[in-house]
Amino acid sequence: MKIGFIGLGQMGSGMAANLVAAGHDLAVYNRSRQKAESFAKGKVRVAASPADAATGAEVVISMLADDHAVSEVVFGEQGLASALGKDAIHVSSSTISVALARRLTVEHGQRGQGFLSVPVFGRPEAAASAKLIIVMAGDERAIDKCKPVGDVLGRQTFVVGAEPWQANAVKVSGNFMIASMLETFGEAFAVMGKAGIERQKFLEIMTELFGSPVYKNYGTMMADQKFEPAGFALKLGLKDVKLAIEAAEGLQAPLPLASLLRDQLISALAHGQEKLDWSSLALVAARNAGL
Amino acid sequence: MKIGFIGLGQMGSGMAANLVAAGHDLAVYNRSRQKAESFAKGKVRVAASPADAATGAEVVISMLADDHAVSEVVFGEQGLASALGKDAIHVSSSTISVALARRLTVEHGQRGQGFLSVPVFGRPEAAASAKLIIVMAGDERAIDKCKPVGDVLGRQTFVVGAEPWQANAVKVSGNFMIASMLETFGEAFAVMGKAGIERQKFLEIMTELFGSPVYKNYGTMMADQKFEPAGFALKLGLKDVKLAIEAAEGLQAPLPLASLLRDQLISALAHGQEKLDWSSLALVAARNAGL
Amino acid sequence: MKIGFIGLGQMGSGMAANLVAAGHDLAVYNRSRQKAESFAKGKVRVAASPADAATGAEVVISMLADDHAVSEVVFGEQGLASALGKDAIHVSSSTISVALARRLTVEHGQRGQGFLSVPVFGRPEAAASAKLIIVMAGDERAIDKCKPVGDVLGRQTFVVGAEPWQANAVKVSGNFMIASMLETFGEAFAVMGKAGIERQKFLEIMTELFGSPVYKNYGTMMADQKFEPAGFALKLGLKDVKLAIEAAEGLQAPLPLASLLRDQLISALAHGQEKLDWSSLALVAARNAGL
Amino acid sequence: MKIGFIGLGQMGSGMAANLVAAGHDLAVYNRSRQKAESFAKGKVRVAASPADAATGAEVVISMLADDHAVSEVVFGEQGLASALGKDAIHVSSSTISVALARRLTVEHGQRGQGFLSVPVFGRPEAAASAKLIIVMAGDERAIDKCKPVGDVLGRQTFVVGAEPWQANAVKVSGNFMIASMLETFGEAFAVMGKAGIERQKFLEIMTELFGSPVYKNYGTMMADQKFEPAGFALKLGLKDVKLAIEAAEGLQAPLPLASLLRDQLISALAHGQEKLDWSSLALVAARNAGL
Repeated sequence: MKIGFIGLGQMGSGMAANLVAAGHDLAVYNRSRQKAESFAKGKVRVAASPADAATGAEVVISMLADDHAVSEVVFGEQGLASALGKDAIHVSSSTISVALARRLTVEHGQRGQGFLSVPVFGRPEAAASAKLIIVMAGDERAIDKCKPVGDVLGRQTFVVGAEPWQANAVKVSGNFMIASMLETFGEAFAVMGKAGIERQKFLEIMTELFGSPVYKNYGTMMADQKFEPAGFALKLGLKDVKLAIEAAEGLQAPLPLASLLRDQLISALAHGQEKLDWSSLALVAARNAGL
Repeated sequence: MKIGFIGLGQMGSGMAANLVAAGHDLAVYNRSRQKAESFAKGKVRVAASPADAATGAEVVISMLADDHAVSEVVFGEQGLASALGKDAIHVSSSTISVALARRLTVEHGQRGQGFLSVPVFGRPEAAASAKLIIVMAGDERAIDKCKPVGDVLGRQTFVVGAEPWQANAVKVSGNFMIASMLETFGEAFAVMGKAGIERQKFLEIMTELFGSPVYKNYGTMMADQKFEPAGFALKLGLKDVKLAIEAAEGLQAPLPLASLLRDQLISALAHGQEKLDWSSLALVAARNAGL
Repeated sequence: MKIGFIGLGQMGSGMAANLVAAGHDLAVYNRSRQKAESFAKGKVRVAASPADAATGAEVVISMLADDHAVSEVVFGEQGLASALGKDAIHVSSSTISVALARRLTVEHGQRGQGFLSVPVFGRPEAAASAKLIIVMAGDERAIDKCKPVGDVLGRQTFVVGAEPWQANAVKVSGNFMIASMLETFGEAFAVMGKAGIERQKFLEIMTELFGSPVYKNYGTMMADQKFEPAGFALKLGLKDVKLAIEAAEGLQAPLPLASLLRDQLISALAHGQEKLDWSSLALVAARNAGL
Repeated sequence: MKIGFIGLGQMGSGMAANLVAAGHDLAVYNRSRQKAESFAKGKVRVAASPADAATGAEVVISMLADDHAVSEVVFGEQGLASALGKDAIHVSSSTISVALARRLTVEHGQRGQGFLSVPVFGRPEAAASAKLIIVMAGDERAIDKCKPVGDVLGRQTFVVGAEPWQANAVKVSGNFMIASMLETFGEAFAVMGKAGIERQKFLEIMTELFGSPVYKNYGTMMADQKFEPAGFALKLGLKDVKLAIEAAEGLQAPLPLASLLRDQLISALAHGQEKLDWSSLALVAARNAGL
């Protein structure tokens, strides 16, 4: 398949490599061209712009940092919307707002272009090893066409609805679930701290209780108080929690737990933690307990 | 070992059966005598009172509903404190308050009796199949003596400190972690409901993401909206969240997430959910979203 | 009227003085006898015990620190319940729990004694100058008898129901309303601090907006960051917020705002503020904002 | 003074009338021209566009619904920024975001135009009777020039800083303080409802306690459960609470109480209350208590 791929960051580069390995024909674009050039071998072409990457492609995948970056790449000068063919499909894998997903659906639709939201769960290692969890939503025909692409990228693909934004609602809600686990652990560790109980011990018990690698990974960072280098920066965590809150507000659903997370993350920012891993949220509960 | 066992409810009966199977010599007491009599074979003796169960025992294990029941059994008429020998040990496995654990430590100490807090994580099935997670805290010599007993009851035993109440702090914090997961799931499911996304689908994705049987079990109850029969009644869930809050307050640690849980659980009570499973907490978020 | 008066603290001494001035015949009891003796002139008799104060009295008023003190004075050795005559009335003006008010109603009732809850709003100055706001609840006949006493103590008397505990529910809810104002002010002042706006200026505007002396008094303490000497210690503030939460829980009403107050107050305790004025709650919001 | 006035809604029409009465020379613009024409007598000229209103004016005052309306009027086609003279001043009295105030400061500055934020507290009646509370921030010279105008519009004028956005931070924080009072009252009224105590009675006591007309007015609406016609629609209340949250987030200050308000207001929206008065927030607490 002829695929344009935009955004070769930590996640995107692993995903693009897997597409190449699966035999697809890629045109890659990255804002800093150097990264793109390191991909240029065999069937891979370096595109000069998002529009260039979209030209002649059946599918263009974008994997970028946030709403702003996606808007630029799609609607900016030399944006992909200006060059994507009729019936070609834009697959948006970035973690973006429900609102932007709705706008992309409308705008691509008006141009006769297809649009799918295909956010993913997983860290860069999972992207590199094709172990991502893939969430898809959009028009059925477009999904039929792109599902095999998803299967190349991840360990399992879930189709959640006919409207693209539904996949984004799932993605931001999933991130909210992780963030909530962080706050819970943080509060519990603060209690352990005041009770004179080793964090490591509590972690072992919780790992046994929940049997979840997610609990184990994040809990270990908290128990060790090792928040650098950041796997996922706290500032980005706040962005994601806000996306969950906005998505829910758009649907008129309160999310009191997400609101709590938001306030604790802002307190973390106020204490200079923006570049620490978001598991450093635990420091807020610790400070509030006088630790 | 000569063991007194008090409280043959859903949890206690499985635990007592495992002790018998391991060859221990049991004197069992239960408030309604019938249950105790069903145990009366081989080396098992039915005791007429807690004091009777404690007479001559090296260890007395109590597994009861709450602070009130434990206080009665220990300090009430024919209570075990009146009969437990010097150097014999009271092992408290009930989910009780940190405050009561402190009091038991003092009172047993004054009588020259040993005291350990040994709360457990796990449902009745885990108690029956000796798969409990055992948490122990207290005097080192007492722990050395009772650890083999713990190993009979569970799949792993964790010693968390030299003061019995520390084990209770771990137990109530662990239950807080589960309750927090319930609220998180509930809020996310409310968003799914408003977004027109199948709960079942979201559950599958979260199960894949967290890889935790606890998420799967509770998430399934919520996705199916099947809250009866209750595995763990919502009213008891509120009791446990309050124990976590009290323990934290005693240590001067705020627990804002637990406070949120408490308010949502009270709203659930106000809507008649006290006997439903505590995963019905999800109904509160649903109602607040107008579902 | 023959009145027993128990508890000559900051509030009680002002109230008792006003009763004397109105010509009532007082028997006063205070734990530290010295304070009682300073009242001993004219028609005032110093009682040796609560029971002694109750002997022969038509009405016994208690004005004490908390549930524990009231329980002692009523049910302890030489407690007033043992000596209060049939048809005589115990008027409880302390800020106590709804639960204790219910218990007092039952216990006095079983002895054929009357019981009214008559909590008051106001500071010691208001007690001394008979400017308290008096809240009454209980049996109609008892109220008819005691209302003139209330009118001596305060600027206005409100009868809120036929069950004594209802007055306590009003009192603790009113204190919750004040505490909520403190938190609100504290959060807003934190914003002002980060915005580089003078607290004093914001205070003036809010004073103009709300036109409330309560806002002005507490806002001034916060704007000046002058939390000592404490008019009302933060530790007592936490006690009162917890009374509001317990009262609401007993009625199955969630109080999420009170829960927030509770957690912020606990954080204040964890930072050593227990003896500061409860308006120092503002320091918690300031710390959370990194100020 | 030659003044352009844009926005003749409930607030703006009262303010404009007072400026006319004070002898100022007005050019008025309103989106629906009819309202503007009802002002056209004596020294009042009806402007065809915001730009027309700004032409030749020393000061242009805008009083509009929200960020969107202000952006349109300033930067849209025939916007006032295109016509305002050098050294002339745009006075923004709308309740807008801190972010927009910052942008207006920069944009007007780049054009050599002055800019002041002058939000007001008060209802339409206060606007009509020149009883508003006026908050001003911005460049000192601009303030010197405009302060007399403020004095015509309100009962008191407060200058809070040299940067316009500071006045907006004060305004949204003040509205947050009112909203917080509403939630507090709502929770307390829910307790009263469950306790069988008349809301009216509790209102009287709180009115006596706080001595604030704001408490009295809003409390009366809640006690009477009369939320229509809306003095201030709940949907606008949510907008304002969000402005407070955004302002605080921009300054890295958490506002947990505002977050609670936000969630409760969203729950109110989910139950169809968007057009009711924002004091109908009380219905959320009532529902959560099962009333």
